[in-house]
Amino acid sequence: MSFVSALQSYRHNVQNSLIFRLKMSSFLSHAAGRPFLLTSAQMDGLFRHIEELNINSEAYRLYYTFVLRDQLLGYLQPSFVSTLQEVADLTLDINHSNRTIHLSNPLGSQSVSDISIAMASLMEKLKESGKIRGWRNELLPVVSAYGEEPLFLLERAAVPCFGVKAYGVHVNGFLRSEESGVPSHLWVARRSKQKSTWPGMLDHIVAGGQPHGLGLMENVIKECEEEASIPASLACRARPVSAISYNGIDEQGNLKRDALFCYDLELPKEFQPRPLDGEVENFELRDMKWVLDRLLAVDEDRYKPNCNLVIIDFFIRHGLIDPESPRYLQLVAALRAPGCL
Amino acid sequence: MSFVSALQSYRHNVQNSLIFRLKMSSFLSHAAGRPFLLTSAQMDGLFRHIEELNINSEAYRLYYTFVLRDQLLGYLQPSFVSTLQEVADLTLDINHSNRTIHLSNPLGSQSVSDISIAMASLMEKLKESGKIRGWRNELLPVVSAYGEEPLFLLERAAVPCFGVKAYGVHVNGFLRSEESGVPSHLWVARRSKQKSTWPGMLDHIVAGGQPHGLGLMENVIKECEEEASIPASLACRARPVSAISYNGIDEQGNLKRDALFCYDLELPKEFQPRPLDGEVENFELRDMKWVLDRLLAVDEDRYKPNCNLVIIDFFIRHGLIDPESPRYLQLVAALRAPGCL
Repeated sequence: MSFVSALQSYRHNVQNSLIFRLKMSSFLSHAAGRPFLLTSAQMDGLFRHIEELNINSEAYRLYYTFVLRDQLLGYLQPSFVSTLQEVADLTLDINHSNRTIHLSNPLGSQSVSDISIAMASLMEKLKESGKIRGWRNELLPVVSAYGEEPLFLLERAAVPCFGVKAYGVHVNGFLRSEESGVPSHLWVARRSKQKSTWPGMLDHIVAGGQPHGLGLMENVIKECEEEASIPASLACRARPVSAISYNGIDEQGNLKRDALFCYDLELPKEFQPRPLDGEVENFELRDMKWVLDRLLAVDEDRYKPNCNLVIIDFFIRHGLIDPESPRYLQLVAALRAPGCL
Repeated sequence: MSFVSALQSYRHNVQNSLIFRLKMSSFLSHAAGRPFLLTSAQMDGLFRHIEELNINSEAYRLYYTFVLRDQLLGYLQPSFVSTLQEVADLTLDINHSNRTIHLSNPLGSQSVSDISIAMASLMEKLKESGKIRGWRNELLPVVSAYGEEPLFLLERAAVPCFGVKAYGVHVNGFLRSEESGVPSHLWVARRSKQKSTWPGMLDHIVAGGQPHGLGLMENVIKECEEEASIPASLACRARPVSAISYNGIDEQGNLKRDALFCYDLELPKEFQPRPLDGEVENFELRDMKWVLDRLLAVDEDRYKPNCNLVIIDFFIRHGLIDPESPRYLQLVAALRAPGCL
C-alpha cells in the first residue's frame, strides 16, 4: 500500500498548494508593477523576432568557413566562393571537401599589414569585375572575438561577404515608476524615412556599431551625443547590463553574425532627447504596455528587427514578463545565439 | 594608392578614438558605482563555476535517453540501465543500439496513473534489491518542460537516476545605493553545519526547489517566510528577472539538469532576516566587492555551486561587470546550458 499512501500524500500536497495560492493571490494582486503574463500566442510573437534573425544549423553547414591561425573568422556563401575562384587570385586556399578557406602559405603566418595588403589587392580585383559594390575606401579590423587584436584590415564593403563578426551598442533609455521602482516608460526613436536601412521603423533612443579603437562606454557616450543630444554628464550614467546575439542572413545571402552590448540609461523625467544627426525623425516617450504591443504587432509600426531582442531582454531583466508565461526559460536562452559571441 | 589612403584614414580614426577616450575618461571616473573590470584570470574564476556544473557534449552521449511520446524526459547512466536489466522487469524497453529507453507497449499510451503504478512497481523491485537508497515514499511529477502537465509520478529517491529536469527559485536579497541607484549590498546566508548538502557554505538569502502545483511567486513567498522570516507583504515585491541553467553530474554519476528562476528582492535598510527552519546558521549583509571576492575565492568560504551562477547573472544585470572584461559575451551566454530549459 506504499504507492497508495504516497499518492494520497501527493494529492494532499497539490490541494494544499492550491489553497496557499489562493491565500497569496491577495498579496500578489496588490504588488505594484506586476509582470505581464503572456499567452502562448504572444510568446510565439516574441520568438518570431528571434527566429527572424537566426538561421538553423542545417543552413549554417552550407557556408564555407574562413579560418586563420586555427581561429574561425567568418563564413562565406558558396556563390561568393565561386566568385573568388573566378578571379584566379592566389591569396586564398579554397578546400571544397571540408568547405574551408585559409590564407595561402606563407601569407597566413605573416604580419597584419602583409595580410591586409594581399587581401586589399584581391578585393580590388573583385571590385573591378563588379563583384563588390558600394566600395567605401574604409578599412575595418577583422577579429576573432570582441576585444582581440585585429588579424588584418578589410575594406568595409567586403566585410559582409566574409561573414565576420560585428559588434554594436544599444541603449534602453527609460523612466522608472516612483511608486514601484519598475521601468514605466521607454524612449522610442522613429527612424528617418530617408534612411537606406529600415526607414521609418521604431528604434532605440541610441544605438550604433562598435568601431575599433573606441571603448564600449566611450562609444555609448559618443552615440548619445550624436543621435539624441544626450550630454556626456548624463550618458555616463548608462549601465552595461546584458548582451544579445544572433546569426542571420542578410538580403544578399551573407551570414550576419552580430553581438550587441545592451545598456540601460535611466533618464530624468524632465529630459527631452533631440535628433541631431538627421538619422532620427523624432523621439516619443511610451509606456511599457505600448512597447510590448509593438513587440507583438504584425502591422507596419514595428521596431527594427534587432531592437526587438534587446527590448525582450529589457522586459525580462526588469521583471516585466511573468516567468509562468509559456516557454519563458527558452526565451531567456534564445536571446544569445551559440557560437556568435 | 587607394589602400594607402584607406590605411591612413584607419590610423587617423584609431588615433582620434584614443584622444576621445582620454577626453571621456574624466566623465567615467566620476560615474558612481563603476563596474568591476575583471582580469582574464578573474574571468577564468567565474567560468570555472559554470564548468563545474556542466558536462561537455561528449560525456552527454554516454547516457541513455528516456523518451515518452516523442518527448525527451531524462538521461540514465549505463550502470543504472544495467541495474534495470538485472531486475528483468518489462515496464521499460531498452534499446542499446541507439541508447534509448521507452515505456513498453501499450503502457506508453496509457494514463498518468497507469504509468505511475507500473513505474512504482518497478521502483519497489529496485528498492528491495538495494539499488535505490533513501526511499522517501514521496511522489514527484515528471515533466518535459516547466509548466507542462506531469507525464507520470515517480518516487523522489529515484528521480536523480532518471536524470529528469528539476526547477528551483533563487532570491537575490539586496540593498541599493541611494547615490548611484546600483546594488551596494547582498544578504548572504551561511548554511547550517548540520545540513547534509553543502554544510557551512554560503547561500542566497532564500532559495528552494520548485514543487508541483505551486506557482513560482507563491513558492518565493513561502520560502521567504520559511527560510528568512521575510513577511509576505515584503516578499511579494520580489521581481522575476532572469533564469540560469546547467547540466552536470552529481556524486553518484547521475545527470543533474536544473533550471533556476532568479528573483531580485530589494530590501529596506532596516530589515533584518532571521533563520526560521534551522537550515541557515545566520545572515550577513555584505558589500558587492566582498561578494565578488567570494565568487573568485579558492578557499573554504565559498558559495554553494549553483548560487555562483545566479550571482554572476546578478552582477551582469546590474552593470557590475565591465563588458570590456575578457570573454564577457561568452560569460553572458554560458549561464544557460543548451537543452536544459
